[in-house]
Formats: sequence, structure tokens, C-alpha cells
Amino acid sequence: MYIGIDIGGSGIDAGLFRRDGSLAARARADVAPGMGRDGIVRDMLSALRGLISRAGVRSEGVLGIGVGVPGAFDGASGEILHTPNLPLDGLNLARELAGDFSAPVALENDANCAALGELRAPGRETVTDMVFVTIGTGIGGGIIAGGTIYRGAGSAAGEIGHMVIVHGGRPCPCGRLGCWERYASASALASSAAGVCAKGGGGAMLRLCGGDMASITAKTPFDAAKRGDAPSMRLIDEYISYLACGMTNLVNIFQPQLICIGGGVSREPDEWLLDPLRETMHREAYSRPGGRVGVEKTRFARDAGIIGAAALFFE
Amino acid sequence: MYIGIDIGGSGIDAGLFRRDGSLAARARADVAPGMGRDGIVRDMLSALRGLISRAGVRSEGVLGIGVGVPGAFDGASGEILHTPNLPLDGLNLARELAGDFSAPVALENDANCAALGELRAPGRETVTDMVFVTIGTGIGGGIIAGGTIYRGAGSAAGEIGHMVIVHGGRPCPCGRLGCWERYASASALASSAAGVCAKGGGGAMLRLCGGDMASITAKTPFDAAKRGDAPSMRLIDEYISYLACGMTNLVNIFQPQLICIGGGVSREPDEWLLDPLRETMHREAYSRPGGRVGVEKTRFARDAGIIGAAALFFE
Repeated sequence: MYIGIDIGGSGIDAGLFRRDGSLAARARADVAPGMGRDGIVRDMLSALRGLISRAGVRSEGVLGIGVGVPGAFDGASGEILHTPNLPLDGLNLARELAGDFSAPVALENDANCAALGELRAPGRETVTDMVFVTIGTGIGGGIIAGGTIYRGAGSAAGEIGHMVIVHGGRPCPCGRLGCWERYASASALASSAAGVCAKGGGGAMLRLCGGDMASITAKTPFDAAKRGDAPSMRLIDEYISYLACGMTNLVNIFQPQLICIGGGVSREPDEWLLDPLRETMHREAYSRPGGRVGVEKTRFARDAGIIGAAALFFE
Repeated sequence: MYIGIDIGGSGIDAGLFRRDGSLAARARADVAPGMGRDGIVRDMLSALRGLISRAGVRSEGVLGIGVGVPGAFDGASGEILHTPNLPLDGLNLARELAGDFSAPVALENDANCAALGELRAPGRETVTDMVFVTIGTGIGGGIIAGGTIYRGAGSAAGEIGHMVIVHGGRPCPCGRLGCWERYASASALASSAAGVCAKGGGGAMLRLCGGDMASITAKTPFDAAKRGDAPSMRLIDEYISYLACGMTNLVNIFQPQLICIGGGVSREPDEWLLDPLRETMHREAYSRPGGRVGVEKTRFARDAGIIGAAALFFE
């Protein structure tokens, strides 16, 4: 059996997988705001012990543990170097897990794990070149080239959210101006929606969230647009234009067979997200002999991360 | 012996290489404006015959012919499908060469050949991840991932010049608005320089080209800036900012060990090109553990193309 772990800002998911890749059991350890490193590690280990005991597996039966890390890490030592949204800097995860498990531990970037997991979805058997785009607080990318993860020097490739699409545009915490994620992340859409509300044009959006501007998310303008609200529809059109811009850039650079999107926004219905995205991308992207790029949403949703983490041992 | 051929808009270069990769002889067939397909092929074959006869090699001694194509091609049949700047559409190059040579013919994108050639430069032995950026009429890209060419689906990857860096910006013939090559190609710089002259601010540049605005090239504003001309210096600053923007995008996406630039602009002295580029890129690009991206100019200049084409057989 193999364990796949996906470390996220709000919780740590884990799955126990059989040798054929099928899921035997899963567990989750929530991460509450303000929780410290020791608490997070304790809850994670407790969730892992529960995971194998519920499945009736002894720890020696676990042959590999893959971990998707939302930040920088040292693969050789198993140490997490820096996770911007979690207090795990300096945690040697391999050492922590060695107390309970004798299996080797492999760390990998979380977006790369999601991409690798997505490749294992039914119907994706022939996909060898894909870019997985995760739309959340920022925009992350997992690049599959020739059937395997493209890691780049220092395993630092895939910062696709920090591709400038508006030269001299909105300031990004990374130091650049006009990064894609400042226009096309879920946070960017929520922030634009709040901006429309602050200027008095977001009545329909405000009604959807009980008049509380602080509870506006990326879902709010989508929901208001579906009810025919004109300012929200304009906002969504603009959002799709920015999202399609960066995705078309990725097509022209990589010419992958497939661009796959994940994150909460990917759950919007096709007529509001994938259809207009495809329309723009197929019109604007460089074509290639014998086909055009596929644009799809994740087929595993949250599970892609744990599947891909375990799949580090199936590669 | 191996032959490497680089098909360009103004001429076809060919090199005869020994098995160890060293150059034995070279030849060139100029392509005059208005020349038709048959004339180009005739001159190319004549140049190839001259190439081997001068080296005292019989055609049976040629074991492979690699060709860098500036456009779309079908590698299996050896047919050139479309070359935007040459009348070679529909030419079956493999069949044409078969009249003189019994060796296998391999077609490859010209920017990929240049990238592959550049990898063979002294000091580049450990480079496995590189983006080669050719700055000319447009901006072309050759991507080396894990030591080999990254081709993407349909061998159509690497259209890095058609990455939008100014959303809603200058119209590009490809149909998009704001493509990188509309701001950072040699043609874009020449056109901006002509624009400054048309508005009356380009006295120094006009003097350098004898008052003939039609003969302004990308070199003109660089030369005027070196003489201290303020409008030209502003133009170069703006140009470097656009060039660095796209190159930093490529670093964040690929995190290569090296970004290498070729084309006429790359011959400008470091203090006017590479130094300010590096300064901006090292400040803005995502860093990685243990190093930062190298930014260099081609070490082979024009020869990278023929070296890389022959190297298709050394891979």
C-alpha cells in the first residue's frame, strides 16, 4: 500500500492506495487558523495512524509515502524549507514520519502532484503533455512534459501565476507589476467584485451575501451573473478574458495536448467557464497540425493531489 | 560525416560535420528577394554538392542530413508544410535530397536546432534546461527540457513571441493583442525608432542613417544611445523593459538554468543589453534554491543552427 498526502492551507488530506492505484481509505486533519507547527504535525500523524488502522494495514505494509508540499522543500533531506500559508518552515517531514513508518518519503510540489494525479483519470491514458492550472488564492501550475513532471532547475518551475500579462499593471507581492494571478486568481475576482460593490454597482452580489462585503468570494459574481445581473456579467466577461489570456500564452509556449484547470472556480458550470474559455483560446492560440488543445476541468477535484502524491511511487 | 542545414529568409546555410561534431566545411546559398521555389532548391543542391566535393567526401559518406525549418513541416514524410517568409510550402525536402544523398533526412524547427546547437558550446556541458530566444523579425523559442528538445503536441511548442505581455495591447498578425514580439523583437524596436523619428524626436538616429527613415534598424537606436542621445536612450530603456518582462515570464514558468539569446540584437555590447536585462530579471524573477538563472548571448551566432541540425543525429 502507498500513502499520498496533500498539504493545504486549511487541512492535510491523506489517502491510502493499493498497488493498482485504487483508493482504499482516506483521512483529513483540519488546520485551524493560528495552529502552530507541533499541533499540525500531531494531528497529521494521528490522522495517518487512523487511516491505516481503519484499513487494517500495519505500518510495515506501507511501501511509500508521497507528499505534495505547497512551497519550497529539499527533496534529498525531506525538509520543508518554506510554506507561505502554513507555519511548517524547517520541518523535516521525512524524520517525523520515520517514527511511525519505515517507508521511503518523497516530497513534491503540490501542483505537480495534482497534475500527476490528473493524468491517472480515465480517458487521460494518452496524455503526455499537459499543463495543470490551479486557480485559488494565486495561480499554480503543474507541467507534464513527455509523460513526466517538468521540474526545472531547483524543482522551481511552474510559477505560471507570476507571468506578467499586463506590463506595468497591478502590483504583485512577488515584486512584479501585472502578474496573471493578480487578474485571474479566485482572490483577484473576489477583490474585483468587492470593488464593484464598494462603488455602489454590486447590489445583486451584496444581496447574495447578506449585505456583508467581507463574505464576497469568486463564486458571488458567478452566482449573480447566472441570475442576469449586468455588472456581474461584465465582471465575469473581463475575468474570462484575463484567464484566457494566460492560458493561451501557455498553449503557445507549450502546445500541450491538454490544459486542465482545478480549484474552486473550476466547479462553475461549463457555459459560464469552459465554453467561453475554449471559444477565446481556440480563436487566439496558435494551432498545430492535426488538432487543437483540449481545455478541461479536473476530473478528481480535491483527490488529484493525494492520487498524484501516491503516484510518485508508481511512476 | 553529417550535414546540418539552416533554412533562413535570406539564405540557406549548410555545414559538413565530422562524427565528433567538429565542422569540416561550410557553404551558403543566398536567397534573393522574389526567388521562386525551384530556384531556391536548385541553388541549395548546388551548394551541398560544392560542400562535399570541396571536403573530398562522396555523397555515400554522408550518414545523416538535419534541416532546421523556419515554419511547419511533417517530420514523417519530410515535407515542408508552410514557411511564412519563403516560398517553400509543399516542398518535399527529403525527396529532393534523395536524388543526391542516400542518408536519412531529419527536419526540425529552426529555433529548436539553434537551441540544440547552443548546448554544444564549450562550458554548456551541464546545461539540461534552457530556453533559447531568437530576436529577429519576430521572437522564436527553442526549449530544452531535461537535455532534449521539448516539442509539444504536433511539434508546435515554443511560440514564445506570441505570449501576451500587454493585455489589450498592440495588434499582432497572429490575431492576438499585445504579443511579446510586438514590443521586444528587432522589428518592433526599429518600428518604435521610426515612430520617434516621424514625430521629430529622432535627429540623432536619422543622422546615423543618412536621413533615410526606411533604413532604420534595431541597431540605429542602440548606436544613437551609445553616443548619448536622450530619446534613443529612453527607447532602449523601454525596449529592455519589454524584453526583460517576457524573459522573466519564461524564467518563472520554466526555471531553466540558462536563457540564451540569439539574433542581431544579441550582438549589442553587454552594458547595453545583457547587463540591464540581468539586473531586471534577477530582481524580478522567482528565485530557486541554490542559484539564479544564467542570461547569456549565443556563443555560436549564426552557426548554432547548422550545428544543431547536424546534432539531430548525435542526440
